[in-house]
Amino acid sequence: MSNTNQGPVTVLGLGMMGAALANAFVRNGNPTTVWNRSAGKAEALVAQGAVFAPDIREAIAAGPVVVACVSTYEVLNELFAGAAAELKGKVVVNLTSGTPEDARAAAVWAEQHGVRYLDGAVMAVPQMIGLPQALIFYGGSQELFAEQEELLKPLAGTGVYLGEDTGVPMIYDLGLLSLLWSSLAGYFHAVALVRSAGVPAEAFTPFAAGWIEHVIAPAIPQSAREIDSNSFETEVSSLDVNKAAIEHLVATSRQLGINSDLPAAVQALIERRVAQGFGTHSLASLVEAFEQG
Amino acid sequence: MSNTNQGPVTVLGLGMMGAALANAFVRNGNPTTVWNRSAGKAEALVAQGAVFAPDIREAIAAGPVVVACVSTYEVLNELFAGAAAELKGKVVVNLTSGTPEDARAAAVWAEQHGVRYLDGAVMAVPQMIGLPQALIFYGGSQELFAEQEELLKPLAGTGVYLGEDTGVPMIYDLGLLSLLWSSLAGYFHAVALVRSAGVPAEAFTPFAAGWIEHVIAPAIPQSAREIDSNSFETEVSSLDVNKAAIEHLVATSRQLGINSDLPAAVQALIERRVAQGFGTHSLASLVEAFEQG
Repeated sequence: MSNTNQGPVTVLGLGMMGAALANAFVRNGNPTTVWNRSAGKAEALVAQGAVFAPDIREAIAAGPVVVACVSTYEVLNELFAGAAAELKGKVVVNLTSGTPEDARAAAVWAEQHGVRYLDGAVMAVPQMIGLPQALIFYGGSQELFAEQEELLKPLAGTGVYLGEDTGVPMIYDLGLLSLLWSSLAGYFHAVALVRSAGVPAEAFTPFAAGWIEHVIAPAIPQSAREIDSNSFETEVSSLDVNKAAIEHLVATSRQLGINSDLPAAVQALIERRVAQGFGTHSLASLVEAFEQG
Repeated sequence: MSNTNQGPVTVLGLGMMGAALANAFVRNGNPTTVWNRSAGKAEALVAQGAVFAPDIREAIAAGPVVVACVSTYEVLNELFAGAAAELKGKVVVNLTSGTPEDARAAAVWAEQHGVRYLDGAVMAVPQMIGLPQALIFYGGSQELFAEQEELLKPLAGTGVYLGEDTGVPMIYDLGLLSLLWSSLAGYFHAVALVRSAGVPAEAFTPFAAGWIEHVIAPAIPQSAREIDSNSFETEVSSLDVNKAAIEHLVATSRQLGINSDLPAAVQALIERRVAQGFGTHSLASLVEAFEQG
Protein backbone atom coordinates (compact mmCIF):
# COMPACT_ATOMS: atom_id res chain seq x y z
CA MET A 1 0.00 0.00 0.00
CA SER A 2 2.41 2.70 -1.11
CA ASN A 3 -0.44 4.95 -2.28
CA THR A 4 -0.75 7.58 0.47
CA ASN A 5 -4.46 7.60 -0.26
CA GLN A 6 -4.76 4.02 1.03
CA GLY A 7 -2.89 4.14 4.31
CA PRO A 8 -4.30 2.63 7.51
CA VAL A 9 -6.78 4.70 9.46
CA THR A 10 -8.68 4.37 12.72
CA VAL A 11 -12.22 5.74 13.06
CA LEU A 12 -13.55 6.48 16.55
CA GLY A 13 -17.31 6.73 16.88
CA LEU A 14 -19.81 4.91 14.69
CA GLY A 15 -22.90 7.07 14.87
CA MET A 16 -24.51 7.80 11.49
CA MET A 17 -21.71 10.17 10.48
CA GLY A 18 -18.83 8.13 11.93
CA ALA A 19 -20.08 4.96 10.25
CA ALA A 20 -20.34 6.82 6.93
CA LEU A 21 -16.75 8.05 7.29
CA ALA A 22 -15.46 4.56 8.14
CA ASN A 23 -17.44 3.15 5.24
CA ALA A 24 -15.81 5.62 2.82
CA PHE A 25 -12.34 4.49 3.95
CA VAL A 26 -13.23 0.80 3.66
CA ARG A 27 -14.61 1.32 0.14
CA ASN A 28 -11.43 3.18 -0.81
CA GLY A 29 -9.29 0.25 0.30
CA ASN A 30 -7.78 1.79 3.42
CA PRO A 31 -7.06 -0.75 6.19
CA THR A 32 -9.68 0.58 8.62
CA THR A 33 -9.88 -0.05 12.35
CA VAL A 34 -13.09 1.05 14.01
CA TRP A 35 -14.10 1.57 17.61
CA ASN A 36 -17.44 2.41 19.18
CA ARG A 37 -18.62 2.19 22.77
CA SER A 38 -21.27 -0.33 21.75
CA ALA A 39 -19.90 -3.02 19.44
CA GLY A 40 -23.15 -3.61 17.55
CA LYS A 41 -22.70 -0.56 15.34
CA ALA A 42 -19.48 -2.04 13.92
CA GLU A 43 -21.05 -5.19 12.52
CA ALA A 44 -21.92 -3.92 9.05
CA LEU A 45 -18.46 -2.34 8.69
CA VAL A 46 -16.67 -5.52 9.82
CA ALA A 47 -18.68 -7.45 7.23
CA GLN A 48 -17.20 -5.09 4.63
CA GLY A 49 -13.63 -5.55 5.83
CA ALA A 50 -13.10 -3.17 8.75
CA VAL A 51 -11.45 -4.42 11.92
CA PHE A 52 -13.29 -3.77 15.18
CA ALA A 53 -11.14 -3.04 18.24
CA PRO A 54 -13.19 -3.33 21.44
CA ASP A 55 -10.57 -1.33 23.41
CA ILE A 56 -10.17 2.29 22.24
CA ARG A 57 -6.46 2.21 23.11
CA GLU A 58 -5.98 -0.80 20.87
CA ALA A 59 -7.90 0.98 18.08
CA ILE A 60 -5.68 4.06 18.34
CA ALA A 61 -2.50 1.93 18.43
CA ALA A 62 -3.51 0.18 15.18
CA GLY A 63 -2.26 2.96 12.89
CA PRO A 64 -0.78 6.46 12.56
CA VAL A 65 -4.02 8.39 11.86
CA VAL A 66 -7.17 8.65 13.99
CA VAL A 67 -10.40 10.17 12.64
CA ALA A 68 -12.75 10.99 15.49
CA CYS A 69 -16.48 11.66 15.16
CA VAL A 70 -18.30 11.18 18.43
CA SER A 71 -21.54 12.67 19.77
CA THR A 72 -20.11 15.60 21.77
CA TYR A 73 -16.81 17.17 22.83
CA GLU A 74 -17.57 16.08 26.39
CA VAL A 75 -17.45 12.48 25.19
CA LEU A 76 -14.37 13.15 23.04
CA ASN A 77 -12.42 14.82 25.83
CA GLU A 78 -13.13 11.93 28.20
CA LEU A 79 -12.11 9.34 25.61
CA PHE A 80 -8.89 11.18 24.79
CA ALA A 81 -8.00 11.69 28.48
CA GLY A 82 -8.19 7.91 28.92
CA ALA A 83 -5.96 7.22 25.89
CA ALA A 84 -3.41 10.02 26.09
CA ALA A 85 -0.45 7.64 26.04
CA GLU A 86 -1.62 5.88 22.88
CA LEU A 87 -2.46 9.19 21.15
CA LYS A 88 1.05 10.59 21.62
CA GLY A 89 2.72 11.00 18.24
CA LYS A 90 -0.46 10.18 16.31
CA VAL A 91 -2.35 12.36 13.86
CA VAL A 92 -5.89 13.16 15.02
CA VAL A 93 -8.44 14.50 12.54
CA ASN A 94 -11.37 15.51 14.69
CA LEU A 95 -14.72 15.80 12.90
CA THR A 96 -16.87 15.96 16.04
CA SER A 97 -19.52 18.71 16.04
CA GLY A 98 -19.31 21.41 18.66
CA THR A 99 -18.41 25.04 19.09
CA PRO A 100 -15.29 26.83 17.81
CA GLU A 101 -14.09 27.04 21.43
CA ASP A 102 -14.50 23.27 21.81
CA ALA A 103 -12.28 22.78 18.76
CA ARG A 104 -9.67 25.27 19.95
CA ALA A 105 -9.55 23.65 23.42
CA ALA A 106 -9.10 20.21 21.85
CA ALA A 107 -6.20 21.58 19.80
CA VAL A 108 -4.57 22.94 22.96
CA TRP A 109 -4.98 19.57 24.69
CA ALA A 110 -3.46 17.84 21.65
CA GLU A 111 -0.49 20.21 21.62
CA GLN A 112 0.11 19.55 25.31
CA HIS A 113 0.00 15.78 24.77
CA GLY A 114 2.19 15.53 21.67
CA VAL A 115 -0.74 14.83 19.34
CA ARG A 116 -0.71 16.28 15.81
CA TYR A 117 -4.20 17.76 15.47
CA LEU A 118 -6.48 18.87 12.63
CA ASP A 119 -10.04 19.96 13.20
CA GLY A 120 -12.69 19.51 10.53
CA ALA A 121 -16.33 20.40 9.96
CA VAL A 122 -18.36 18.13 7.71
CA MET A 123 -20.80 20.09 5.51
CA ALA A 124 -22.78 17.05 4.43
CA VAL A 125 -25.34 14.61 5.71
CA PRO A 126 -24.01 11.07 6.25
CA GLN A 127 -25.62 9.90 2.99
CA MET A 128 -23.38 12.34 1.07
CA ILE A 129 -20.04 11.22 2.56
CA GLY A 130 -17.63 10.09 -0.15
CA LEU A 131 -19.55 11.83 -2.93
CA PRO A 132 -18.11 14.64 -5.09
CA GLN A 133 -20.56 17.21 -3.68
CA ALA A 134 -19.53 16.56 -0.06
CA LEU A 135 -17.49 19.36 1.54
CA ILE A 136 -15.26 19.29 4.62
CA PHE A 137 -13.59 22.37 6.12
CA TYR A 138 -10.24 21.83 7.85
CA GLY A 139 -8.15 23.95 10.22
CA GLY A 140 -4.82 23.47 11.99
CA SER A 141 -1.19 23.10 10.89
CA GLN A 142 -0.86 23.75 7.16
CA GLU A 143 2.02 21.28 6.96
CA LEU A 144 -0.04 18.58 8.64
CA PHE A 145 -3.01 19.23 6.34
CA ALA A 146 -0.77 19.01 3.26
CA GLU A 147 0.57 15.71 4.58
CA GLN A 148 -2.88 14.22 5.24
CA GLU A 149 -4.89 15.76 2.39
CA GLU A 150 -4.61 12.68 0.15
CA LEU A 151 -5.62 10.31 2.93
CA LEU A 152 -8.73 12.38 3.65
CA LYS A 153 -9.86 12.54 -0.01
CA PRO A 154 -12.15 9.48 0.18
CA LEU A 155 -14.37 11.33 2.68
CA ALA A 156 -15.47 14.26 0.53
CA GLY A 157 -15.09 15.56 -3.01
CA THR A 158 -13.92 18.87 -1.60
CA GLY A 159 -11.65 19.39 1.38
CA VAL A 160 -10.97 23.08 2.06
CA TYR A 161 -8.12 24.19 4.30
CA LEU A 162 -9.07 27.40 6.15
CA GLY A 163 -5.91 28.19 8.11
CA GLU A 164 -4.13 27.51 11.38
CA ASP A 165 -7.04 28.49 13.66
CA THR A 166 -8.76 25.20 14.52
CA GLY A 167 -11.92 27.13 15.50
CA VAL A 168 -12.53 28.44 11.98
CA PRO A 169 -13.93 25.26 10.36
CA MET A 170 -16.66 25.15 12.99
CA ILE A 171 -17.33 28.89 12.50
CA TYR A 172 -17.83 28.33 8.77
CA ASP A 173 -19.98 25.29 9.56
CA LEU A 174 -22.17 27.25 11.97
CA GLY A 175 -22.34 30.18 9.52
CA LEU A 176 -23.62 27.98 6.72
CA LEU A 177 -26.05 26.26 9.07
CA SER A 178 -27.33 29.65 10.23
CA LEU A 179 -27.94 30.56 6.58
CA LEU A 180 -29.68 27.21 6.02
CA TRP A 181 -31.90 27.31 9.09
CA SER A 182 -32.91 30.94 8.59
CA SER A 183 -33.59 30.49 4.88
CA LEU A 184 -35.65 27.34 5.31
CA ALA A 185 -37.52 28.74 8.31
CA GLY A 186 -38.34 31.84 6.22
CA TYR A 187 -39.59 29.53 3.49
CA PHE A 188 -41.73 27.52 5.93
CA HIS A 189 -43.15 30.79 7.27
CA ALA A 190 -43.98 31.77 3.68
CA VAL A 191 -45.66 28.41 3.10
CA ALA A 192 -47.73 28.88 6.26
CA LEU A 193 -48.87 32.24 4.80
CA VAL A 194 -49.86 30.87 1.39
CA ARG A 195 -51.53 27.83 2.96
CA SER A 196 -53.71 30.21 4.99
CA ALA A 197 -55.20 31.24 1.62
CA GLY A 198 -55.68 27.62 0.58
CA VAL A 199 -52.63 27.55 -1.71
CA PRO A 200 -50.58 24.30 -1.58
CA ALA A 201 -46.82 24.56 -1.03
CA GLU A 202 -46.01 23.21 -4.51
CA ALA A 203 -47.94 26.03 -6.22
CA PHE A 204 -45.66 28.50 -4.46
CA THR A 205 -42.44 26.55 -5.24
CA PRO A 206 -41.62 28.10 -8.65
CA PHE A 207 -41.88 31.61 -7.21
CA ALA A 208 -39.76 30.74 -4.16
CA ALA A 209 -37.17 29.02 -6.38
CA GLY A 210 -37.03 31.94 -8.83
CA TRP A 211 -36.78 34.40 -5.97
CA ILE A 212 -33.82 32.53 -4.48
CA GLU A 213 -32.07 32.39 -7.84
CA HIS A 214 -32.77 35.92 -9.05
CA VAL A 215 -33.02 38.00 -5.87
CA ILE A 216 -31.47 36.27 -2.84
CA ALA A 217 -28.39 34.63 -4.42
CA PRO A 218 -27.26 37.84 -6.20
CA ALA A 219 -27.67 39.79 -2.94
CA ILE A 220 -24.92 37.73 -1.25
CA PRO A 221 -21.84 38.94 -3.19
CA GLN A 222 -23.32 42.46 -3.38
CA SER A 223 -23.79 42.53 0.40
CA ALA A 224 -20.29 41.12 0.97
CA ARG A 225 -18.79 43.99 -1.03
CA GLU A 226 -20.79 46.55 0.96
CA ILE A 227 -19.74 44.94 4.26
CA ASP A 228 -16.04 44.67 3.43
CA SER A 229 -15.92 48.25 2.14
CA ASN A 230 -18.15 49.49 4.99
CA SER A 231 -20.27 51.45 2.48
CA PHE A 232 -23.96 50.81 2.99
CA GLU A 233 -25.70 53.87 1.51
CA THR A 234 -28.33 52.76 -1.02
CA GLU A 235 -31.10 54.16 -3.18
CA VAL A 236 -32.51 50.73 -4.02
CA SER A 237 -33.86 49.13 -0.87
CA SER A 238 -33.09 51.08 2.29
CA LEU A 239 -33.70 50.00 5.88
CA ASP A 240 -36.38 52.73 6.04
CA VAL A 241 -38.28 51.05 3.18
CA ASN A 242 -37.78 47.58 4.64
CA LYS A 243 -38.90 48.75 8.08
CA ALA A 244 -42.29 49.76 6.68
CA ALA A 245 -42.69 46.53 4.70
CA ILE A 246 -41.71 44.12 7.49
CA GLU A 247 -44.40 45.67 9.69
CA HIS A 248 -46.97 44.34 7.20
CA LEU A 249 -45.42 40.87 7.44
CA VAL A 250 -45.43 40.73 11.22
CA ALA A 251 -48.95 42.20 11.44
CA THR A 252 -50.34 39.82 8.80
CA SER A 253 -48.73 36.80 10.47
CA ARG A 254 -50.31 37.72 13.78
CA GLN A 255 -53.73 38.34 12.18
CA LEU A 256 -53.54 34.87 10.63
CA GLY A 257 -52.38 33.18 13.86
CA ILE A 258 -49.03 32.31 12.29
CA ASN A 259 -45.95 32.39 14.52
CA SER A 260 -44.17 35.71 13.86
CA ASP A 261 -41.08 35.28 16.07
CA LEU A 262 -38.78 34.82 13.06
CA PRO A 263 -39.72 38.02 11.16
CA ALA A 264 -40.03 39.84 14.48
CA ALA A 265 -36.38 39.02 15.21
CA VAL A 266 -35.36 40.56 11.87
CA GLN A 267 -37.73 43.49 12.42
CA ALA A 268 -36.09 44.28 15.77
CA LEU A 269 -32.65 44.40 14.12
CA ILE A 270 -33.94 46.66 11.31
CA GLU A 271 -35.66 48.98 13.80
CA ARG A 272 -32.53 49.17 15.92
CA ARG A 273 -30.39 50.22 12.93
CA VAL A 274 -32.99 52.79 11.84
CA ALA A 275 -33.12 54.18 15.40
CA GLN A 276 -29.32 54.47 15.30
CA GLY A 277 -29.66 56.74 12.27
CA PHE A 278 -28.89 54.22 9.51
CA GLY A 279 -32.26 54.25 7.75
CA THR A 280 -30.63 55.08 4.41
CA HIS A 281 -28.37 52.01 4.67
CA SER A 282 -29.00 48.77 2.79
CA LEU A 283 -30.00 45.56 4.59
CA ALA A 284 -26.30 44.56 4.64
CA SER A 285 -25.89 47.12 7.40
CA LEU A 286 -27.65 44.57 9.66
CA VAL A 287 -24.33 42.74 10.06
CA GLU A 288 -23.41 45.51 12.48
CA ALA A 289 -26.63 45.00 14.43
CA PHE A 290 -25.69 41.32 14.82
CA GLU A 291 -22.21 42.31 15.96
CA GLN A 292 -23.64 44.69 18.54
CA GLY A 293 -25.17 41.65 20.30
CA MET B 1 -54.02 54.41 -30.46
CA SER B 2 -55.86 51.22 -31.26
CA ASN B 3 -53.17 49.08 -29.64
CA THR B 4 -54.67 48.05 -26.26
CA ASN B 5 -51.14 48.20 -24.90
CA GLN B 6 -51.03 51.97 -25.41
CA GLY B 7 -54.33 53.12 -23.95
CA PRO B 8 -54.59 56.09 -21.60
CA VAL B 9 -53.78 55.51 -17.96
CA THR B 10 -53.78 57.53 -14.76
CA VAL B 11 -51.15 56.96 -12.07
CA LEU B 12 -51.92 58.08 -8.51
CA GLY B 13 -48.94 58.49 -6.22
CA LEU B 14 -45.45 59.44 -7.35
CA GLY B 15 -43.21 58.04 -4.66
CA MET B 16 -40.23 56.07 -5.95
CA MET B 17 -42.41 53.15 -7.05
CA GLY B 18 -45.31 55.21 -8.41
CA ALA B 19 -42.95 57.41 -10.41
CA ALA B 20 -41.26 54.30 -11.86
CA LEU B 21 -44.68 52.89 -12.87
CA ALA B 22 -45.72 56.19 -14.52
CA ASN B 23 -42.35 56.37 -16.26
CA ALA B 24 -42.83 52.88 -17.72
CA PHE B 25 -46.19 53.91 -19.19
CA VAL B 26 -44.79 57.14 -20.63
CA ARG B 27 -41.89 55.26 -22.25
CA ASN B 28 -44.33 52.76 -23.71
CA GLY B 29 -46.31 55.57 -25.33
CA ASN B 30 -49.43 55.43 -23.15
CA PRO B 31 -51.08 58.84 -22.66
CA THR B 32 -50.31 59.13 -18.95
CA THR B 33 -51.98 61.40 -16.43
CA VAL B 34 -50.26 61.62 -13.07
CA TRP B 35 -51.32 62.94 -9.69
CA ASN B 36 -49.43 63.37 -6.45
CA ARG B 37 -50.25 65.36 -3.33
CA SER B 38 -47.13 67.44 -3.85
CA ALA B 39 -46.72 68.58 -7.46
CA GLY B 40 -42.91 68.67 -7.43
CA LYS B 41 -42.59 64.92 -7.88
CA ALA B 42 -44.38 65.16 -11.24
CA GLU B 43 -41.88 67.50 -12.89
CA ALA B 44 -39.55 64.91 -14.37
CA LEU B 45 -42.51 62.91 -15.70
CA VAL B 46 -44.16 65.97 -17.25
CA ALA B 47 -40.87 66.76 -18.99
CA GLN B 48 -41.09 63.28 -20.55
CA GLY B 49 -44.67 63.75 -21.71
CA ALA B 50 -46.96 62.93 -18.78
CA VAL B 51 -49.81 65.28 -17.91
CA PHE B 52 -50.02 66.41 -14.30
CA ALA B 53 -53.51 66.89 -12.86
CA PRO B 54 -53.39 68.88 -9.61
CA ASP B 55 -56.88 67.67 -8.62
CA ILE B 56 -57.14 63.92 -8.05
CA ARG B 57 -60.72 63.88 -9.35
CA GLU B 58 -59.56 65.43 -12.59
CA ALA B 59 -56.73 62.85 -12.81
CA ILE B 60 -59.18 59.97 -12.37
CA ALA B 61 -61.61 61.45 -14.90
CA ALA B 62 -58.85 61.63 -17.55
CA GLY B 63 -59.09 57.98 -18.57
CA PRO B 64 -60.66 54.57 -17.98
CA VAL B 65 -57.84 52.98 -15.95
CA VAL B 66 -56.31 54.15 -12.67
CA VAL B 67 -53.10 52.62 -11.31
CA ALA B 68 -52.67 53.51 -7.63
CA CYS B 69 -49.44 53.27 -5.67
CA VAL B 70 -49.51 55.43 -2.56
CA SER B 71 -47.68 55.15 0.75
CA THR B 72 -50.31 53.28 2.81
CA TYR B 73 -53.87 51.97 2.59
CA GLU B 74 -54.89 54.63 5.07
CA VAL B 75 -53.89 57.24 2.50
CA LEU B 76 -55.47 55.26 -0.33
CA ASN B 77 -58.80 54.81 1.44
CA GLU B 78 -59.01 58.52 2.22
CA LEU B 79 -58.20 59.49 -1.38
CA PHE B 80 -60.75 57.07 -2.79
CA ALA B 81 -63.45 58.18 -0.34
CA GLY B 82 -63.01 61.73 -1.63
CA ALA B 83 -63.25 60.69 -5.29
CA ALA B 84 -65.90 57.96 -5.21
CA ALA B 85 -68.05 59.66 -7.85
CA GLU B 86 -65.19 59.90 -10.34
CA LEU B 87 -64.04 56.31 -9.65
CA LYS B 88 -67.46 54.82 -10.47
CA GLY B 89 -67.16 52.68 -13.62
CA LYS B 90 -63.40 52.96 -13.74
CA VAL B 91 -60.84 50.18 -13.56
CA VAL B 92 -58.54 50.47 -10.54
CA VAL B 93 -55.29 48.49 -10.40
CA ASN B 94 -54.05 48.98 -6.88
CA LEU B 95 -50.35 48.37 -6.32
CA THR B 96 -50.16 49.96 -2.86
CA SER B 97 -48.29 47.86 -0.26
CA GLY B 98 -50.18 46.65 2.79
CA THR B 99 -51.66 43.53 4.30
CA PRO B 100 -53.90 40.95 2.56
CA GLU B 101 -56.80 42.25 4.67
CA ASP B 102 -56.14 45.80 3.45
CA ALA B 103 -56.37 44.55 -0.14
CA ARG B 104 -59.56 42.56 0.51
CA ALA B 105 -61.20 45.55 2.23
CA ALA B 106 -60.31 47.80 -0.70
CA ALA B 107 -61.91 45.28 -3.06
CA VAL B 108 -65.10 45.32 -0.99
CA TRP B 109 -65.17 49.12 -1.05
CA ALA B 110 -64.64 49.05 -4.84
CA GLU B 111 -67.47 46.56 -5.31
CA GLN B 112 -69.78 48.74 -3.24
CA HIS B 113 -68.89 51.82 -5.28
CA GLY B 114 -69.12 50.33 -8.77
CA VAL B 115 -65.36 50.28 -9.28
CA ARG B 116 -63.76 47.40 -11.21
CA TYR B 117 -60.84 46.39 -8.98
CA LEU B 118 -57.61 44.44 -9.37
CA ASP B 119 -55.03 44.20 -6.63
CA GLY B 120 -51.36 43.73 -7.40
CA ALA B 121 -48.10 43.18 -5.53
CA VAL B 122 -44.92 44.44 -7.15
CA MET B 123 -41.99 42.04 -6.58
CA ALA B 124 -39.34 44.47 -7.74
CA VAL B 125 -37.48 47.55 -6.62
CA PRO B 126 -38.41 50.74 -8.53
CA GLN B 127 -35.20 50.48 -10.59
CA MET B 128 -36.45 47.16 -12.04
CA ILE B 129 -39.90 48.39 -13.19
CA GLY B 130 -40.37 47.81 -16.91
CA LEU B 131 -37.56 45.27 -17.15
CA PRO B 132 -38.05 41.63 -18.18
CA GLN B 133 -37.07 40.32 -14.73
CA ALA B 134 -39.71 42.41 -12.91
CA LEU B 135 -42.64 40.41 -11.52
CA ILE B 136 -46.10 41.58 -10.47
CA PHE B 137 -48.70 39.32 -8.83
CA TYR B 138 -52.37 40.14 -9.56
CA GLY B 139 -55.64 39.08 -7.95
CA GLY B 140 -59.31 39.85 -8.59
CA SER B 141 -61.75 39.23 -11.43
CA GLN B 142 -60.21 36.91 -14.01
CA GLU B 143 -62.19 38.60 -16.76
CA LEU B 144 -60.95 42.02 -15.72
CA PHE B 145 -57.35 40.80 -15.56
CA ALA B 146 -57.64 39.29 -19.05
CA GLU B 147 -59.02 42.62 -20.29
CA GLN B 148 -56.22 44.70 -18.71
CA GLU B 149 -53.27 42.30 -19.04
CA GLU B 150 -51.92 43.94 -22.21
CA LEU B 151 -52.18 47.43 -20.75
CA LEU B 152 -50.18 46.34 -17.68
CA LYS B 153 -47.37 44.70 -19.68
CA PRO B 154 -45.10 47.79 -19.77
CA LEU B 155 -44.77 47.59 -15.98
CA ALA B 156 -43.15 44.17 -15.63
CA GLY B 157 -41.81 41.36 -17.79
CA THR B 158 -43.98 38.93 -15.88
CA GLY B 159 -47.52 39.53 -14.64
CA VAL B 160 -48.93 36.50 -12.82
CA TYR B 161 -52.65 36.17 -12.15
CA LEU B 162 -53.23 34.32 -8.86
CA GLY B 163 -57.04 34.09 -8.69
CA GLU B 164 -60.13 35.94 -7.55
CA ASP B 165 -58.98 36.51 -3.96
CA THR B 166 -57.50 40.02 -3.94
CA GLY B 167 -55.61 39.19 -0.72
CA VAL B 168 -53.45 36.51 -2.37
CA PRO B 169 -50.99 38.76 -4.28
CA MET B 170 -50.03 40.42 -0.99
CA ILE B 171 -49.73 37.00 0.69
CA TYR B 172 -47.30 35.85 -2.03
CA ASP B 173 -45.49 39.18 -1.72
CA LEU B 174 -45.13 38.84 2.05
CA GLY B 175 -44.14 35.18 1.70
CA LEU B 176 -41.30 36.01 -0.68
CA LEU B 177 -40.23 38.92 1.50
CA SER B 178 -40.21 36.63 4.54
CA LEU B 179 -37.94 34.26 2.63
CA LEU B 180 -35.72 37.19 1.59
CA TRP B 181 -35.42 38.80 5.02
CA SER B 182 -34.81 35.51 6.82
CA SER B 183 -32.25 34.32 4.27
CA LEU B 184 -30.31 37.58 4.21
CA ALA B 185 -30.47 37.94 8.00
CA GLY B 186 -29.12 34.37 8.31
CA TYR B 187 -26.34 35.35 5.92
CA PHE B 188 -25.52 38.51 7.88
CA HIS B 189 -25.46 36.45 11.07
CA ALA B 190 -23.03 34.06 9.35
CA VAL B 191 -20.85 36.99 8.27
CA ALA B 192 -20.79 38.28 11.85
CA LEU B 193 -19.54 34.82 12.91
CA VAL B 194 -16.74 34.61 10.32
CA ARG B 195 -15.73 38.24 10.94
CA SER B 196 -15.26 37.35 14.61
CA ALA B 197 -12.40 35.11 13.40
CA GLY B 198 -10.95 37.89 11.26
CA VAL B 199 -12.35 36.51 7.98
CA PRO B 200 -13.71 39.14 5.54
CA ALA B 201 -17.21 38.65 4.11
CA GLU B 202 -15.93 38.16 0.56
CA ALA B 203 -13.79 35.15 1.59
CA PHE B 204 -16.97 33.46 2.80
CA THR B 205 -19.01 34.40 -0.31
CA PRO B 206 -18.16 31.37 -2.50
CA PHE B 207 -19.17 28.98 0.27
CA ALA B 208 -22.42 30.83 1.00
CA ALA B 209 -23.21 30.98 -2.73
CA GLY B 210 -22.47 27.28 -3.26
CA TRP B 211 -24.50 26.38 -0.17
CA ILE B 212 -27.51 28.31 -1.48
CA GLU B 213 -27.24 26.66 -4.90
CA HIS B 214 -26.51 23.09 -3.81
CA VAL B 215 -28.22 22.75 -0.43
CA ILE B 216 -30.85 25.44 0.18
CA ALA B 217 -32.42 25.75 -3.29
CA PRO B 218 -32.90 21.96 -3.72
CA ALA B 219 -34.49 21.77 -0.25
CA ILE B 220 -37.41 23.99 -1.38
CA PRO B 221 -39.18 21.61 -3.83
CA GLN B 222 -38.30 18.63 -1.61
CA SER B 223 -39.87 20.35 1.41
CA ALA B 224 -42.93 21.37 -0.61
CA ARG B 225 -43.57 17.72 -1.55
CA GLU B 226 -43.25 16.66 2.10
CA ILE B 227 -45.59 19.43 3.23
CA ASP B 228 -48.28 18.78 0.60
CA SER B 229 -48.19 15.03 1.22
CA ASN B 230 -47.95 15.52 4.99
CA SER B 231 -45.12 12.95 5.15
CA PHE B 232 -42.18 14.25 7.14
CA GLU B 233 -40.35 11.12 8.36
CA THR B 234 -36.67 11.30 7.37
CA GLU B 235 -33.40 9.46 7.90
CA VAL B 236 -31.32 12.28 6.43
CA SER B 237 -31.59 15.32 8.70
CA SER B 238 -34.12 14.93 11.47
CA LEU B 239 -35.32 17.59 13.90
CA ASP B 240 -33.51 15.63 16.65
CA VAL B 241 -30.20 16.07 14.79
CA ASN B 242 -30.91 19.72 14.01
CA LYS B 243 -31.88 20.42 17.62
CA ALA B 244 -28.43 19.33 18.81
CA ALA B 245 -26.65 21.34 16.11
CA ILE B 246 -28.58 24.59 16.54
CA GLU B 247 -27.64 24.60 20.23
CA HIS B 248 -24.01 25.00 19.15
CA LEU B 249 -24.97 27.93 16.94
CA VAL B 250 -26.90 29.78 19.64
CA ALA B 251 -24.23 29.05 22.28
CA THR B 252 -21.38 30.15 20.01
CA SER B 253 -23.18 33.35 19.01
CA ARG B 254 -23.69 34.24 22.66
CA GLN B 255 -20.06 33.45 23.52
CA LEU B 256 -18.95 35.77 20.74
CA GLY B 257 -21.37 38.56 21.73
CA ILE B 258 -23.27 38.18 18.45
CA ASN B 259 -27.04 38.68 18.51
CA SER B 260 -28.65 35.23 18.63
CA ASP B 261 -32.35 36.17 18.45
CA LEU B 262 -32.68 34.91 14.87
CA PRO B 263 -31.32 31.36 15.41
CA ALA B 264 -33.03 31.29 18.82
CA ALA B 265 -36.38 31.85 17.08
CA VAL B 266 -35.73 28.84 14.82
CA GLN B 267 -34.41 26.84 17.77
CA ALA B 268 -37.63 27.44 19.73
CA LEU B 269 -39.72 26.12 16.81
CA ILE B 270 -37.47 23.03 16.45
CA GLU B 271 -37.62 22.36 20.19
CA ARG B 272 -41.39 22.71 20.22
CA ARG B 273 -41.79 20.14 17.41
CA VAL B 274 -39.37 17.75 19.14
CA ALA B 275 -41.29 18.14 22.42
CA GLN B 276 -44.50 17.34 20.51
CA GLY B 277 -42.94 14.02 19.52
CA PHE B 278 -41.83 14.88 15.97
CA GLY B 279 -38.07 14.50 16.46
CA THR B 280 -37.85 12.04 13.55
CA HIS B 281 -39.48 14.56 11.19
CA SER B 282 -37.54 16.64 8.68
CA LEU B 283 -37.19 20.41 9.03
CA ALA B 284 -40.21 20.82 6.72
CA SER B 285 -42.33 19.77 9.67
CA LEU B 286 -41.66 23.27 11.06
CA VAL B 287 -44.41 24.61 8.82
CA GLU B 288 -46.82 23.14 11.35
CA ALA B 289 -45.04 24.91 14.19
CA PHE B 290 -45.54 28.21 12.33
CA GLU B 291 -49.21 27.38 11.80
CA GLN B 292 -49.64 26.65 15.51
CA GLY B 293 -48.83 30.31 16.17
